[in-house]
Amino acid sequence: MNNEVLVVGSLALDTVETPFGQVEEALGGAGLYAATAASLLASVHLVGVIGDDFPQQALDDLAGRGVVLDGVQIIEGGKSFRWSGRYEYDMNEADTLETHLNVFADFEPVLPPAARQCDFVFLANILPSLQLRVLDQVDQPRLTICDTMNFWIENAREELLEVLSRVHVAAMNDAELRQLTGQPNLAKAATEVLEMGPKYLVIKKGEYGASLVSCDRHFALPCYPLPTVVDPTGAGDSFAGGFIGFLAWSGEISDEQLRQALAIGTVTASACVEDFSINALGRLTAEELYKRYEALRGMVAFPDIPREAICSV
Amino acid sequence: MNNEVLVVGSLALDTVETPFGQVEEALGGAGLYAATAASLLASVHLVGVIGDDFPQQALDDLAGRGVVLDGVQIIEGGKSFRWSGRYEYDMNEADTLETHLNVFADFEPVLPPAARQCDFVFLANILPSLQLRVLDQVDQPRLTICDTMNFWIENAREELLEVLSRVHVAAMNDAELRQLTGQPNLAKAATEVLEMGPKYLVIKKGEYGASLVSCDRHFALPCYPLPTVVDPTGAGDSFAGGFIGFLAWSGEISDEQLRQALAIGTVTASACVEDFSINALGRLTAEELYKRYEALRGMVAFPDIPREAICSV
Repeated sequence: MNNEVLVVGSLALDTVETPFGQVEEALGGAGLYAATAASLLASVHLVGVIGDDFPQQALDDLAGRGVVLDGVQIIEGGKSFRWSGRYEYDMNEADTLETHLNVFADFEPVLPPAARQCDFVFLANILPSLQLRVLDQVDQPRLTICDTMNFWIENAREELLEVLSRVHVAAMNDAELRQLTGQPNLAKAATEVLEMGPKYLVIKKGEYGASLVSCDRHFALPCYPLPTVVDPTGAGDSFAGGFIGFLAWSGEISDEQLRQALAIGTVTASACVEDFSINALGRLTAEELYKRYEALRGMVAFPDIPREAICSV
Repeated sequence: MNNEVLVVGSLALDTVETPFGQVEEALGGAGLYAATAASLLASVHLVGVIGDDFPQQALDDLAGRGVVLDGVQIIEGGKSFRWSGRYEYDMNEADTLETHLNVFADFEPVLPPAARQCDFVFLANILPSLQLRVLDQVDQPRLTICDTMNFWIENAREELLEVLSRVHVAAMNDAELRQLTGQPNLAKAATEVLEMGPKYLVIKKGEYGASLVSCDRHFALPCYPLPTVVDPTGAGDSFAGGFIGFLAWSGEISDEQLRQALAIGTVTASACVEDFSINALGRLTAEELYKRYEALRGMVAFPDIPREAICSV
C-alpha cells in the first residue's frame, strides 16, 4: 500500500472563450487538471506527453505540488496538444473550435516503475486502447477510475467496453451514459453500465451535480452553488482528481469514503470553474476545500420525520 | 390558524404521448395535480373551473380525499380545458401540440369563505392577473407560493412582478429563472428574484432535483432516482402540492420544515411520474412517501471529515 495516485491524461494548451472573458494557450488538459486537483491531498504521478513548447514554469509548479513528472514525455521539436473552444451562456457544453493532437497523436504511455505501483489510478479521457495499455502496466492498483467521451463511445466502442470490464469505477456524464447504453432513463442506464464491469459508476451532471451508483446504492449530490462561473473547462477532471485524491488521502475505499470523495470532487470542481485554466484550482487550499465540503454537507442535510406521525394521516 | 391548503389552478383533460405509451383526455391540470398531492397530508380547498364534460368520478375521488370542491365552478354547456403534448426520450420538456382553454378562458376565481381563510395558498400556473385576484381575496395566509411559466414571463411581466412582490415563495424551473432575470448564473439569478419580493425561491430542475434559496441559505436535493419514468406531466405541480401539503401538516414554517418540505415535494413528484395522469400519485400512500423520504435522506448523507486532518496536508 502506498496510497499514491497515478494520473494518465493530456497536458494541453487551451484557447477558451466564455461570456466572461478569454484566454489563449492557457494551461489545460485532463491530466493536468486532474493532477493539480489530486495533488492537494495526495502524492501524484503524472503520465502524458508534451512538446518542447510547453511552459517550463508549469512543470515547475506541478513539481512544487509534489507531482512526479518522470512519466511526462517531452518530445523535442514537437508541439503540445492544443484545444480551443467556446462556451455560450449555457455553460454546460463547449463548442469545440479546434483540436490539434500534435504530439498526442503518437502518444504511447510508458509508466516509470514508481507509477506502476500506485494504488489509485485515474485514466483520464484518452483513446481507450491507450487506457488498456496503462492497465496492462499497473501493478494491482486498489482503485482504478476511467473517464471517456462521446467520440470513443461511437468510434472505439469495443476497446471502451474492455476498459469498463477492467476498472473499478467508470466516470461519465449523463449524455455519455445515455449514448453508451441507448437507455434514456439514467437509473436503468446506470444498472446496464454496472453490468459491463465497474463496481461503481460516477455520473457527472455539470451544473446539476453528480451521482455515485453501485448495484445496491445510490448517492447523489447537487452542485456547489457559485455566484461566479467563469470557465467550466476542466471541471470534470478536477472533480475526478479531487475524488481520487481524497480516497488516496483517506487510504480507505468503503461506501462512506466514496461518498466523502464524491463531495470532495464536487467542491474541487467548484473551485476549478471560478477562473480560467488551473488558476483558481491551483490556489485552492485544504482549508477552503474543507469549508466548502462542510457547506455542501449543510446544503443537503434535512431532518428525519417520525414515521408514526406521518403514516397516521 | 387552520393549517388548511388552498390550491388555485387548472383542472384539465390531457392527451399525452411519451415513449412509453399514451393517454387521451386523462385527468390533468396543475390544480388537480397539486390538490391530489397536497391532500395526502392536509385538508385542501380547490378553486378552478370545468365544463360539464368533466368526469364526475374525478370530482368524487377528490372529495373522497377530503378536497373541498365548492370553489370549482362548473360551467353548464362549457368544455373543460384541454391540453395535448408529447415527450421524446429526453423527458425534461414537453412539446405542446394543442391547448384549448375552453372554459378556462373566462375563468374568474371566486373564493368561498372557507377557502379565503386557508393558511397555506398555492397559486398554480395561471394568468398572473388571476393570481393577484386570488391574493386580493385571501385572508392573511401564513404562506403563499406561486408558480409561473415562460409565456407569462414574456407576456404578462408587470403582473407577474406584482405577484412576486406579494408571495412568500416563488417556484419556477431553471429556464424560467434565467428568462425572468436575464441572468445565466442560477445563484445570481436566485438573488435577483429574492430582491423582487419572495422570501424563498424554489428552483425546479426536472430530473436534476430542486433547490430552495433564501437570502442567506441554499438547500438543494437531487431527484429521487426511478427506474421507470412514464410521464413527467404534473411533476412540478405534484412537487408543489407535496411541499405545501407537508408544511400545512407540520404547521410550522421554519428553515427545518422548509427543507423537509422540499424533500417531501421531491418524493411526491417521483410518484407522479411513474404513471400517466394522476394514476400513480393517487395511489401514493403516506407509508410509501415516508419510505422514499428516508431513502432520499440516505442518498444525500455523507460524513464529516475532521478539520485538523484535512487541513494538515
